[in-house]
Amino acid sequence: MNYKDYIRVQEDFPKKGISFKDISPLLANGEAFSQAIAELKEVCAKWNPDVIIGPEARGFVVGAPLAQAMGKGFIMARKKGKLPGEIIAKTYGLEYGTDTIEVPTFAVKKGTRVVIADDLLATGGTLAAIESMLKELGVEVVGIVTLIELTDLQGTKLLSSPYFSLVQYPH
Amino acid sequence: MNYKDYIRVQEDFPKKGISFKDISPLLANGEAFSQAIAELKEVCAKWNPDVIIGPEARGFVVGAPLAQAMGKGFIMARKKGKLPGEIIAKTYGLEYGTDTIEVPTFAVKKGTRVVIADDLLATGGTLAAIESMLKELGVEVVGIVTLIELTDLQGTKLLSSPYFSLVQYPH
Repeated sequence: MNYKDYIRVQEDFPKKGISFKDISPLLANGEAFSQAIAELKEVCAKWNPDVIIGPEARGFVVGAPLAQAMGKGFIMARKKGKLPGEIIAKTYGLEYGTDTIEVPTFAVKKGTRVVIADDLLATGGTLAAIESMLKELGVEVVGIVTLIELTDLQGTKLLSSPYFSLVQYPH
Repeated sequence: MNYKDYIRVQEDFPKKGISFKDISPLLANGEAFSQAIAELKEVCAKWNPDVIIGPEARGFVVGAPLAQAMGKGFIMARKKGKLPGEIIAKTYGLEYGTDTIEVPTFAVKKGTRVVIADDLLATGGTLAAIESMLKELGVEVVGIVTLIELTDLQGTKLLSSPYFSLVQYPH
């Protein structure tokens, strides 16, 4: 399947110079969505994870169905202040300013085998923040998957775990 | 399965007087998560939807795996300014101020049979906004499902489509 047929590229969104990759048509097509998740599942199955984690919000539309397809649990990595109870937080740099991602500690015990899933790898800031936060806890990050990879941005340089993307664009 | 064993109730979160229902433990448990989605699928199958729609962000962790389990597509209903291209927007009242929800128009053609899925029905503002927006487009809202219903808040009064919840709390 040529997944690019289902990804709409919108130039200058959300701001000038950004070539936005809209996965709405891919998700909305039952066949394309099922096949995409099935391909990610096949890759992740080799890593034998206990659980899948995905960052808010588009990581949820990849990670939750992937977990579901594998019969595994799903952990929401959320923006600051959204999760109650005991959490671990990581603040990381963006182009302008910083962002913070939070994960419930009950779900990320030492030795747990985790796959991180998201829609897109760009500069890799968010995924690298989650990866390093989990590693500090002694969690085994067995792999990272995204639907889309923007290869020119070289986000993989920030990641130390095995990585797989379904579709690649230069930027 | 008693799903309440996997839902953690946190009082006074995110603010005083709110009894927050945290679905993180339910999602993180592969067995509980799979069974919850399977039960929702069984209910939704009778409505024979073409596609599932869910609001950002926790609607994604219910709607996307539900769509995946049914072999259907998933539509993201997003907060203002997140979706590129042609969208339809609806602004609705909250306790203080307003919120706006947006949906890509390509995905919601007249006559399409849609199920709306979310994590929780409280006052029903968001779900009712999506429902009325879709109906104005001639979309058939064949049903609405949530994991949790807060029955005292009577959110169902705002909804006109068939509704199902997996777990009920008074508030």
